[in-house]
Amino acid sequence: MPIIYFDQAASSFPKPDTVATAVIKAINEFGANPGRGGHQLANQAASVIYETRVKLAKLFGEKDPNNVIFCQNATHALNQGIKGLHLKQGDHVISTSYEHNSVRRPLEYLKQEKGVKVTYLKSDHNGHISREQLLTEVLPETKLIVASHGSNLTGAIFPIEMIGTVCKERGISFLVDASQTAGILPINMEEMNIDMLAFPGHKGLLGPQGTGALIVKKSIELTPLFHGGTGSHSEEKDQPLARPNRYESGTLNTPGIAGLSAGIDEVVSRGVETIFQHEWKLTKYCLEKLKNINGVTVFGPDLHVERLAVIPFIINETDVQEIAMIFDQHYQVALRGGLHCAPLAHETIGTIEGGTLRASFGLYNTIEEIDQWIDMIIEIKEGLVG
Amino acid sequence: MPIIYFDQAASSFPKPDTVATAVIKAINEFGANPGRGGHQLANQAASVIYETRVKLAKLFGEKDPNNVIFCQNATHALNQGIKGLHLKQGDHVISTSYEHNSVRRPLEYLKQEKGVKVTYLKSDHNGHISREQLLTEVLPETKLIVASHGSNLTGAIFPIEMIGTVCKERGISFLVDASQTAGILPINMEEMNIDMLAFPGHKGLLGPQGTGALIVKKSIELTPLFHGGTGSHSEEKDQPLARPNRYESGTLNTPGIAGLSAGIDEVVSRGVETIFQHEWKLTKYCLEKLKNINGVTVFGPDLHVERLAVIPFIINETDVQEIAMIFDQHYQVALRGGLHCAPLAHETIGTIEGGTLRASFGLYNTIEEIDQWIDMIIEIKEGLVG
Repeated sequence: MPIIYFDQAASSFPKPDTVATAVIKAINEFGANPGRGGHQLANQAASVIYETRVKLAKLFGEKDPNNVIFCQNATHALNQGIKGLHLKQGDHVISTSYEHNSVRRPLEYLKQEKGVKVTYLKSDHNGHISREQLLTEVLPETKLIVASHGSNLTGAIFPIEMIGTVCKERGISFLVDASQTAGILPINMEEMNIDMLAFPGHKGLLGPQGTGALIVKKSIELTPLFHGGTGSHSEEKDQPLARPNRYESGTLNTPGIAGLSAGIDEVVSRGVETIFQHEWKLTKYCLEKLKNINGVTVFGPDLHVERLAVIPFIINETDVQEIAMIFDQHYQVALRGGLHCAPLAHETIGTIEGGTLRASFGLYNTIEEIDQWIDMIIEIKEGLVG
Repeated sequence: MPIIYFDQAASSFPKPDTVATAVIKAINEFGANPGRGGHQLANQAASVIYETRVKLAKLFGEKDPNNVIFCQNATHALNQGIKGLHLKQGDHVISTSYEHNSVRRPLEYLKQEKGVKVTYLKSDHNGHISREQLLTEVLPETKLIVASHGSNLTGAIFPIEMIGTVCKERGISFLVDASQTAGILPINMEEMNIDMLAFPGHKGLLGPQGTGALIVKKSIELTPLFHGGTGSHSEEKDQPLARPNRYESGTLNTPGIAGLSAGIDEVVSRGVETIFQHEWKLTKYCLEKLKNINGVTVFGPDLHVERLAVIPFIINETDVQEIAMIFDQHYQVALRGGLHCAPLAHETIGTIEGGTLRASFGLYNTIEEIDQWIDMIIEIKEGLVG
């Protein structure tokens, strides 16, 4: 029985075939250090990296590819964005009650270490936050708003455009965590007034793990998290000012970025809108089926509200790890039970005690897989109740 | 004409075939998020990562594999080691005059931002530093010594064991930058009194780019550079204390680490000592040949002194970038001209103005390649002088 992979929110799988091909090519044909030498192998590596910058800048509506900073993952990108802003005692940050630990923990760190104040804004279960509600929280000291574009727990989509408009009006920096949406929802930094966009390469962009990026508008000046060799301005003791080098000390993950480039090509050729529609179709279909199963409780947005392909649920209040294990061992279904690194979101939806199961779908999942899975849930449920 | 790759000090190339195979397998067969789900694909990913920790711990004489922290590269590892130590105003750090910018720039940052004092100890051209010389610089406020194990510019090998002994006697933390030596010289953290060891995966360990690690002895407590999701203790607002999670927020580079694992296997099966002897044989052979060419000036240790396979040189004081380009375009030889991200080392050897060329050899380079290359140098030199 082939594995049914419903853990797409953690890492997309499988990848397009072109991803592994591109990675191998980078390893076997031009495994030199990009930008660290003028020879042809180094130049080939540097070219692949630059092309990927160009693709990402284009995909997300940023004019200058040099504002794309490659990171190991979205968490590193978010840390660079949050900690790089040199916030100081008394500064205020607004975030949401659905944030992943990759946003919450850096904010809590700033709170403890620097005395930065943090407000976690509560959206409703549909992801709705009103302009009025947001404006109530904005203080003269508010320097940054960090918001997830979509919840990794419930799939709720947050009103990034409205928040961006408020940030622009009030001169507040706006950092968006697009971990669940890059490659799945349209994002245009220019139009949405996003100053910094953090995202992983290995989820919706279909690239390999070990990739991610932070795109930083020119107007934002960050302190680099890393200092070191940049292959340029080597004679200076201080980190060079020029981007992207300023923020990319050390050797980049050339093979990973080459793979990411292939992943982006796949996303672009299918179209972000098409990908979302496919995932929404699966999600809606699955939600309709789950609704009819007694004993299954689903959390998150109302049925008719568009959400990401993420469904948190419990079965008869049975321990979620136990059910995840049954799916894994007995049915060969990969999904997750627990807190999904998002305790704040679990607190918000009232599931912090036991956590939930989470099924998440991607580009390559099918209606047939969902049908099979629904049958399994019914079997499990009957086994549990009977 | 096949490319002669003499830029091994920047990134080793080619890699053993097993590296790409392992990377592909990770991407295509178990591309799930390690440790972020209990299902079998996630577990396979987590196993590969854990096995690689075990191999690295064993190779470098550290008992607990959980003290191995994976990083994107050695620069990140060094930044974590240096900035994580919460040094404060008045604290003193000793380093060497041969350090790469990945050590120098974080230290200069601490100097500027925190008022930390830094002494760059001068070794002689053979890499020699005496115990007395080191002790002269040790102050009551000396909290950290950071030293490169071997120079990426001259190949000089530094007396890590002596420095480790002094650190142990004086209760000073000792961080070694093994960027040029991991996989090439024997390193045992226990025996050498090394508290923290930083190294890349893509040089002597023959893994892909995008990998590196910091091994941190249990007695050293660092502030994490990144806060975020760790797949464990998710309910806590603060970063968990348990290693390696404390320092590894976000998704690791699973395919890269799988490739690194294969690279380490190759290193271990050949033996570090055998690898060094091969590289030293090439280096010595090359140095003997270069000695006899008028107009070629070689820098670094004396001829008979064992060094890493790194040779900095100039030809008739001609612009180094120009010669690097001739090697690249006309002869298909990959090597580097410039400062090699090590201006401090260039200042030390007196080549900061124009930089040098640098040829660096690895496991798969041969005497035949060196013979061919020597002929090219003679041609270039004659062309230049004639």
